Amino acid sequence: MKKALLASTSTLHGQAYLEYLIPEIKKFFDGVSEVLFIPYARPGGISPEEYTKMAATAFSKAGLKLKGIQEYQDPTEAVKKAEGIFTGGGNTFLLVTQLYKNKVMKVLQEAILSGTPYMGTSAGTNIAGLTMQTTNDMPIIYPPSFKTLGIVPFNINPHYLDPDKNSTHKGETRETRIKEFHTLNTQPIIGLREGSWLEVSGDKITLKGKPEARIFRPEQVPFEIETGTSLKDLH
Amino acid sequence: MKKALLASTSTLHGQAYLEYLIPEIKKFFDGVSEVLFIPYARPGGISPEEYTKMAATAFSKAGLKLKGIQEYQDPTEAVKKAEGIFTGGGNTFLLVTQLYKNKVMKVLQEAILSGTPYMGTSAGTNIAGLTMQTTNDMPIIYPPSFKTLGIVPFNINPHYLDPDKNSTHKGETRETRIKEFHTLNTQPIIGLREGSWLEVSGDKITLKGKPEARIFRPEQVPFEIETGTSLKDLH
Repeated sequence: MKKALLASTSTLHGQAYLEYLIPEIKKFFDGVSEVLFIPYARPGGISPEEYTKMAATAFSKAGLKLKGIQEYQDPTEAVKKAEGIFTGGGNTFLLVTQLYKNKVMKVLQEAILSGTPYMGTSAGTNIAGLTMQTTNDMPIIYPPSFKTLGIVPFNINPHYLDPDKNSTHKGETRETRIKEFHTLNTQPIIGLREGSWLEVSGDKITLKGKPEARIFRPEQVPFEIETGTSLKDLH
Repeated sequence: MKKALLASTSTLHGQAYLEYLIPEIKKFFDGVSEVLFIPYARPGGISPEEYTKMAATAFSKAGLKLKGIQEYQDPTEAVKKAEGIFTGGGNTFLLVTQLYKNKVMKVLQEAILSGTPYMGTSAGTNIAGLTMQTTNDMPIIYPPSFKTLGIVPFNINPHYLDPDKNSTHKGETRETRIKEFHTLNTQPIIGLREGSWLEVSGDKITLKGKPEARIFRPEQVPFEIETGTSLKDLH
């Protein structure tokens, strides 16, 4: 049975890395002794080793061991054998490029669909959607495709940010960008604010955490959903 | 001789479309009777026809006629024969996809290099750089390549926005995104704030307009440059 924890952000303002998620991580990976970490998104360009150290420190607070995928000779075998998987945030273009380049995208999808618990934050959450096309990141590298895992039947916009009504800046707001996406694409989008996450359990998808999320569909007025809402019909 | 006017934004807060640029447009297209408009970036998904009408209204204030590229049977011929060209803003991924799909990218580059005056705003300015990879836009469509016109020997980040020091949001700032770009790419970047533009005249490139711009190079502390600064050495 498919099982995923998809968080908008790894870190809340003023907190340590993954701090607010530690109790969730503990519950989510119950029975797992070691989690496989995918550091491909390399936030700020840090090395896979540094990033793994950072994640391992946080996971140890949940009583879990964590090992970076770069420590294995064959990354596809590492995914196939993993008891649980966590993909951290960073640059989504880089993450997706690396997943394809290392032939991990397909085996990762298969592992999750066959029941390996999958946790993502930010870019790691974005790739659980149908495509990476609602990322906020800069295209710092050209990926072979924008198609991603499709663990949920919609797209995800992590770090969703409401328009600043006092802004005099003429760059597009997040909502305008998502509207532009919908002039060319049909899948719904969930704007996941920092502090909230999706809990996937088989066919059940539930919004969890603190703030409301925002749902966007083509040619419809976007609307808010409360924590606890089921997203069964979002496809 | 290469001649370009590359503006960060089409519109300033509280003003009409292109309003602040009308005197510049008049000077820049001096001697041109009709300007070819490339509306491929379709801001907010508006049609090429609507977008052309909007641009034509603004250009008429500078005493210039403007015709959309979609009105020609062969867009490559339209570019080759144009006396002057303007590419409007919108979504850079869509703009670049359409330029390649309609086989306009190469002839547009050739036309500009052989002296056809080229004006861009926002996405239309971004594509004058080496690649589109310092865009702020969402990847709403998968372009055949990220390579762009290379009219200037660096990359451009239009609508450059300083980090908000009071923000509690954990999404990346513009500066962080550009730093991530430089972990994988070497070309310098100019962060062009709204209200400023680059004037290209042969090998001379000059910052014009109101606010300072910000220069980013790999592994260097970013720095500010004043209006009037020559960018001859930025490559």
